[in-house]
Amino acid sequence: MTQSSPRRLKLGFILHGVGRTWDDWRHPDRDVRASTSFPFYLHQARLAERGKFDFLFVADSLSINEKSSPHYLNRFEPITILSALAGATTHIGLVGTLTVSYSEPFNVARQFASLDHISNGRAGWNVVTSWLGDTAANFSKDSHPEHHQRYRIASEYIDVVQGLWDSWEDDALVGDKAGGVFVNREKLHRLDHQGEFFQVRGPLNIGRSAQGQPVIFQAGASESGRDFAARRAEVVFCGPQTLAEAQDYYRDLKDRARKFGREADQPLILPGVAPVIGLTEEEAEQRYRELSSLGSLDSGLGFLARAFNDHDFTHYDLDAPFPDVEALGRNSNQSASLRILELVRRDNLTLRQIAERLATPRGDFVGTPGQVADTLQNWFESEGADGFVLFETLPGQLELFVEHVVPLLQDRGLFHRDYEYSTFRENLGLPYPINRYTAQRVA
Amino acid sequence: MTQSSPRRLKLGFILHGVGRTWDDWRHPDRDVRASTSFPFYLHQARLAERGKFDFLFVADSLSINEKSSPHYLNRFEPITILSALAGATTHIGLVGTLTVSYSEPFNVARQFASLDHISNGRAGWNVVTSWLGDTAANFSKDSHPEHHQRYRIASEYIDVVQGLWDSWEDDALVGDKAGGVFVNREKLHRLDHQGEFFQVRGPLNIGRSAQGQPVIFQAGASESGRDFAARRAEVVFCGPQTLAEAQDYYRDLKDRARKFGREADQPLILPGVAPVIGLTEEEAEQRYRELSSLGSLDSGLGFLARAFNDHDFTHYDLDAPFPDVEALGRNSNQSASLRILELVRRDNLTLRQIAERLATPRGDFVGTPGQVADTLQNWFESEGADGFVLFETLPGQLELFVEHVVPLLQDRGLFHRDYEYSTFRENLGLPYPINRYTAQRVA
Repeated sequence: MTQSSPRRLKLGFILHGVGRTWDDWRHPDRDVRASTSFPFYLHQARLAERGKFDFLFVADSLSINEKSSPHYLNRFEPITILSALAGATTHIGLVGTLTVSYSEPFNVARQFASLDHISNGRAGWNVVTSWLGDTAANFSKDSHPEHHQRYRIASEYIDVVQGLWDSWEDDALVGDKAGGVFVNREKLHRLDHQGEFFQVRGPLNIGRSAQGQPVIFQAGASESGRDFAARRAEVVFCGPQTLAEAQDYYRDLKDRARKFGREADQPLILPGVAPVIGLTEEEAEQRYRELSSLGSLDSGLGFLARAFNDHDFTHYDLDAPFPDVEALGRNSNQSASLRILELVRRDNLTLRQIAERLATPRGDFVGTPGQVADTLQNWFESEGADGFVLFETLPGQLELFVEHVVPLLQDRGLFHRDYEYSTFRENLGLPYPINRYTAQRVA
Repeated sequence: MTQSSPRRLKLGFILHGVGRTWDDWRHPDRDVRASTSFPFYLHQARLAERGKFDFLFVADSLSINEKSSPHYLNRFEPITILSALAGATTHIGLVGTLTVSYSEPFNVARQFASLDHISNGRAGWNVVTSWLGDTAANFSKDSHPEHHQRYRIASEYIDVVQGLWDSWEDDALVGDKAGGVFVNREKLHRLDHQGEFFQVRGPLNIGRSAQGQPVIFQAGASESGRDFAARRAEVVFCGPQTLAEAQDYYRDLKDRARKFGREADQPLILPGVAPVIGLTEEEAEQRYRELSSLGSLDSGLGFLARAFNDHDFTHYDLDAPFPDVEALGRNSNQSASLRILELVRRDNLTLRQIAERLATPRGDFVGTPGQVADTLQNWFESEGADGFVLFETLPGQLELFVEHVVPLLQDRGLFHRDYEYSTFRENLGLPYPINRYTAQRVA
């Protein structure tokens, strides 16, 4: 970003089918098959692109059981649905979650590079390590690596993937028909990675794409996760419940990044937000009641089970103090379980109270388009966010956001009026990753 | 296929970018970046769909080195490009190669199931085991499993994938909003596979698609490969050079399939063909010369290297008898190397002669649209083929085939005038795979 250009917020949209929590599918306007409906995804994607969103985001998980929420039970695989959308959109970024725990770096490097070519430079990879206790059983493994180990694996994994993405220098493909030279072999490189967890020779069998390398997303929340994000991520996705939480996270992560020698504006930090918009305050409140009427106690208990290693909470007295399950969260979703425990302690909640709160969190974004735009602006201008990743809480909310909130953000100079560049990386204001071998040659 | 419907040939088209052999990229009309050009793939795909082709086919390989052909060096990954094309086509099948050697069955089951949903029932998986000697080095492995072992792994792998595809019975997704029942849990099944090579619990986190399961393709050529294809494949792709070779293969494979208890019309056997079409015989001959002028001795030597475990053939006397390299082919591409050795012995060829023949094989399909249609009809009617998979030899050949050969096949009642069904499986005349758990319940 040059000094003269104003700081603009970035917007992503989370694509999901039947909803984002346990009971969203029960809304009268939901198609219960939306999670595997390409027409639905296409409609949402095009709507987001009409609203000039910087990117679409497809989350993921790898195992289900009898306690899983409907939005996990049945869903598109991210790489495939993003590739399908790549051919049907022109400017919007395409970000997908893919775990390093149960995949091969060569395959992952290749699929994202291929998506990057198909989309002409619009791919992003949200790097995650798997934490759901029973995922290992789908991959011929007995158990996950322990929490700390997972980030060491992830770090080496990204080294390999980014190394493979540099296999081809930008001008390696020559295509000299008369001379019979297809590729300049001095600009096509083996990686010859020999690490602790991976040994990968390369080169990758696909050239560099328009943006050089796909953009790296990460959602570090635990201590080791934050360090990882601060070192490696270009964009960080997070889930604060309040502005104060957002500011704490923002400050902490930028501090860590600076210690690792990164530029002040990196990584971009984008909290997830779940607005409930109405054209009037009354309408917004009515919509929030509509939303919370869908949430059930079961959903809250399901959410708890997910954070605490699939522990069954249905056997406890709902109105007694929250049970002692701290140890269960430690090697599962560490950050989510810690946050829940903090909330329980701070507000002295019973099991029923925390379950209800988790089922339908209200958040700061219930209101008119103007109120929602104000809150977004406030978070953005008070060091809480570099932008936002939007969840659609109710059918029709994305359209309301695109029609009514986006123009306000544009009028206030906070958001671009149109895509300024053709690649995702450029639209985010991220630097072009100069090929390591080209850099060596120049040095 | 009911008794009253006429037997119709099936047509597939191999999508590739810069060509199918070493020197195709040097043709003046080739875009040297076609292999990663989505507009080019989209154009080819739509042209094939206009010609009512049953399917598109994307081949694959997983490692490159300094000897690799341009069409291997730089290419789309199959799942991503097929997903992108899924959103831009409506009826044509989408078949991709994916190796069982360096992937996880859960991921593969999921990606093909997802592609099957995106395309509304048009996915096919070409199951291969990897044989290029240096692929293991891209996947943190020292070496491939040996040839025979690879098919035992592949067989168990398909068991797992097809088992996961049955996780959801057809009517498992209930979506009863009033009753709060999203899924009928009695119709959502764990696989609990505990095998020699894989342990996979399931269920898969995506429901059954419109065609039940993606179609299984295979290209068994060696003894164990043929047995594997005869047992497991629904469609077999093969590469005979002559009608006699095609008939031998056809008879052998159908015999094997019968012994394994399969129906007489299964699997479908589709030889690859590489027509060179001209509107007159002279034009066809001129085009063939145009094609063979691109082929170089280096290409033939490269082809040999690939079949014989990356052996370097450039150090031999080109005009001496073919060197003794039989052992090198055995654990590499066994079937290709054996065929080359047979050809060398039968025609008593020098290294130069076999290399030239491999660089530009002429085949039986050089001629006018009528001549090409005659030959296709002859192969189809004399038990050499159930249909064909078409390679485009020169730019413009697919269009000639669609405009001039397809109508002849249609006029003769050999090929459908339009897609009769919405799913790939139905268009191929293959049975719907009844869910195993539903079948148990009914029994």
